[in-house]
Amino acid sequence: MSSQEREFVKEITPKSEDFAQWYVDVIRKADLIDYAPVKGCMVIKPYGYGIWERIQEAFDRRFKETGHQNAYFPIFIPESFFQKEAEHVEGFAPEVAWVTHGGGEELTERLAVRPTSETLICAMYSKWIQSWRDLPVLINQWCNVVRWEKSTRPFLRTTEFLWQEGHTAHRTEEEAEEEALRMLEVYRERVENILAIPVIAGQKTEKEKFAGALRTYSIEALMGDGRALQAGTSHNLGQHFAKVFDITFLDQDDQLKYVWQTSWGVSTRLIGALIMVHGDDRGLVLPPKVAPLQVVVVPIAPRKQREMVLAEARALAVGLEDRVQIKLDDRPEYTPGWKFNDWEMRGVPLRIEIGPRDIEKGQVVLVRRDTGEKTAVSREGLETRVVRELEDIQATLFRRAKRFMDENTHQAETFAEIKEILEERRGLIWAGWCGKRECEDAVKEETGATIRCIPFEQPEGTMKCVCCGKGESRKVVFARAY
Amino acid sequence: MSSQEREFVKEITPKSEDFAQWYVDVIRKADLIDYAPVKGCMVIKPYGYGIWERIQEAFDRRFKETGHQNAYFPIFIPESFFQKEAEHVEGFAPEVAWVTHGGGEELTERLAVRPTSETLICAMYSKWIQSWRDLPVLINQWCNVVRWEKSTRPFLRTTEFLWQEGHTAHRTEEEAEEEALRMLEVYRERVENILAIPVIAGQKTEKEKFAGALRTYSIEALMGDGRALQAGTSHNLGQHFAKVFDITFLDQDDQLKYVWQTSWGVSTRLIGALIMVHGDDRGLVLPPKVAPLQVVVVPIAPRKQREMVLAEARALAVGLEDRVQIKLDDRPEYTPGWKFNDWEMRGVPLRIEIGPRDIEKGQVVLVRRDTGEKTAVSREGLETRVVRELEDIQATLFRRAKRFMDENTHQAETFAEIKEILEERRGLIWAGWCGKRECEDAVKEETGATIRCIPFEQPEGTMKCVCCGKGESRKVVFARAY
Repeated sequence: MSSQEREFVKEITPKSEDFAQWYVDVIRKADLIDYAPVKGCMVIKPYGYGIWERIQEAFDRRFKETGHQNAYFPIFIPESFFQKEAEHVEGFAPEVAWVTHGGGEELTERLAVRPTSETLICAMYSKWIQSWRDLPVLINQWCNVVRWEKSTRPFLRTTEFLWQEGHTAHRTEEEAEEEALRMLEVYRERVENILAIPVIAGQKTEKEKFAGALRTYSIEALMGDGRALQAGTSHNLGQHFAKVFDITFLDQDDQLKYVWQTSWGVSTRLIGALIMVHGDDRGLVLPPKVAPLQVVVVPIAPRKQREMVLAEARALAVGLEDRVQIKLDDRPEYTPGWKFNDWEMRGVPLRIEIGPRDIEKGQVVLVRRDTGEKTAVSREGLETRVVRELEDIQATLFRRAKRFMDENTHQAETFAEIKEILEERRGLIWAGWCGKRECEDAVKEETGATIRCIPFEQPEGTMKCVCCGKGESRKVVFARAY
Repeated sequence: MSSQEREFVKEITPKSEDFAQWYVDVIRKADLIDYAPVKGCMVIKPYGYGIWERIQEAFDRRFKETGHQNAYFPIFIPESFFQKEAEHVEGFAPEVAWVTHGGGEELTERLAVRPTSETLICAMYSKWIQSWRDLPVLINQWCNVVRWEKSTRPFLRTTEFLWQEGHTAHRTEEEAEEEALRMLEVYRERVENILAIPVIAGQKTEKEKFAGALRTYSIEALMGDGRALQAGTSHNLGQHFAKVFDITFLDQDDQLKYVWQTSWGVSTRLIGALIMVHGDDRGLVLPPKVAPLQVVVVPIAPRKQREMVLAEARALAVGLEDRVQIKLDDRPEYTPGWKFNDWEMRGVPLRIEIGPRDIEKGQVVLVRRDTGEKTAVSREGLETRVVRELEDIQATLFRRAKRFMDENTHQAETFAEIKEILEERRGLIWAGWCGKRECEDAVKEETGATIRCIPFEQPEGTMKCVCCGKGESRKVVFARAY
């Protein structure tokens, strides 16, 4: 490694030294975002947005396969609508941005810039739904939302962010419950198989559920610093909103009934999770399925052989472009070493190096971002090899993240144990919980850890409540979280 | 036609009777939008949004093929940024919605909800661009924008709408000019080939250009009522914004220079154009390339043969679903006649009818939405036939619209002629224009017609200015416009 290259990498703070600083360093060096001149807002730069486009594509496909259609609802919600559902307004009001003037005049009613769209969408559903034949309504929207935040962090907590919000209406409670669980499963499957992030699926406690929901389900992931991150939520809204917004239908039995609803969402926060789960001290590491660029070709040539090597590298890239997202880095102003670092910081899964000797031997050198492994492989059958290598990187990243999660999942029998684990090791902590709010609050107050969820998959055996010692408790997962 | 069916169709006001009413009737019956409980805002329902998704996909592909990448910039623009470019602020300030409160507090600086993003993007480009090596910057964003409108009309003029805005920065004036023209050509090609809408491409006058641009180019289409509609614009911004936002780069000659910029956009307005160009008295008519649903299968069966016919219809739909967007309408509660009307109103390009006698004969009946033509065709080779039929519908719709445009394009030598044409026939009017603002204003004041553009393709021969009679004038196209 030349001094220039060492200098280059040094700009990323080591993960173990200062995780929060490492996170923003990686984002900056990978060129994912920039800070906007608006408090708490970020610009998602093309490379960062390219990741979001791949996430959108992968999720949108599954939404459509499960029968949903996209639509678009206005960004403005009149204050009177917003305030109809009491719990909901209590949950969101402190975070709302208000439009008070438009077209040069003061408005007679303030407009909320949507922090989420339940209220407006419910007002529409109340018009659209009349009969059981109109059900289910299965609609999703991709949009921007605004939540005024005091302290912000790129991708994880910003005043404006991008997301999708599904909003469905059903005839029966069972159907709504099925839908809420179906979409949580869609999230679990996509996050694990596309983002290569293992998660724990479960139910939120009353304290942590969505403002206005009957039940909230979530998938929880573990970040590299041992803190948890909620990666997606799905809510069974029950009939709370239906009653407030009068969403009724004439059922087959000629009775007028309220619909049962769900809503569910994932956001650009997932990009934050990608960084914190897979990234390392050299920068970003992207699973091939969300990488805007999967393979980069770097030619290595002494000046007089430059043209010949470039021509071979170009042919190679063209030959692969039908199968993978590939780019030839032919910038003359940078050395190969500089380019290696540059693309490593950006997390490109696979690098192909090609020089005069490789050409002589009919080979190229493959370098994996996840393991750093270098292998000389024949040009013959390269396409198949590259595709297989990408598949293996995808699988390896998931396995590695799963192992990290397993190694950082603990069990606590007592309050003292929870505290000790959180002070020394962090991670996810399985513990018993009697179900009482006081016990949940007590743990949070003393340790900063919250119940991430009551996992669907409950380990065998019984545990006592980690706080009050009551037996017959459910097993929950505690963690400090983003 | 049964009385039920007549009733059904009657709900659409005839185009010739009241075009404006016909337009909103079609939108309602085709279920494209609904009015939101927010002044001037609309909800784009799934079927309408499906059209937008197809438009997005078709345009986005070309943007990427021409080297652009997507990104995302914040929706809020601080008032101080917004006001930096004088012409720009003058053009947009009256239409801005202002956020004044956030997080429970009054803001120290008001935030504009973006009516367009030049100012914020320029502030970012000023940070990002240092050297000639950073150029060109070729970025696009798909997003929502807000312009406070006094009177609104679905898709054509709403307070919030969806669009894409491309923003590029270049080393030289020539490159920026090339880019502005390249993107206008992308728009022309997509609008003509995907939306099947013929357009005239040209330059806007000084009066009509974008607030802050050096030159604005546009494509202009002709609606069914003889009014023009601007379907897309591309601006050469010159160095106006670069000077205000200090976007400079060190050129190869070591001189610090201002960049040259462009911006360009199309919006959900294109859906309004689709309706007004192709629609007829039975409802919407969609070109196959933007139709969310290209083919609908309607089984026709007496009760006792219902299951058998349904099974055949299902097999048929499944057999075609790899090639076309197809749906089987198996709703038992509606008659075939009702379904025919329903899908015709929604503009589905092709209907396949199948009944017991068709099954016996190994045939189906194809019914084209554009011509109403019914043809019995063999089940053998149906796939190829359906694809060919859709191609022919696409081509026919374009030809028909082109013929309508040609038939409604007139020439005026004098002011009196322009007035007469606009009173009696409307349409596009070629006329000479000396280039003076007074003449342009005079025509607008007396007739309501504006210069839509100075077309690139100028007819041969000379014309005198239609207002002042000066010779050696450019030929322009006047029209009343949306």
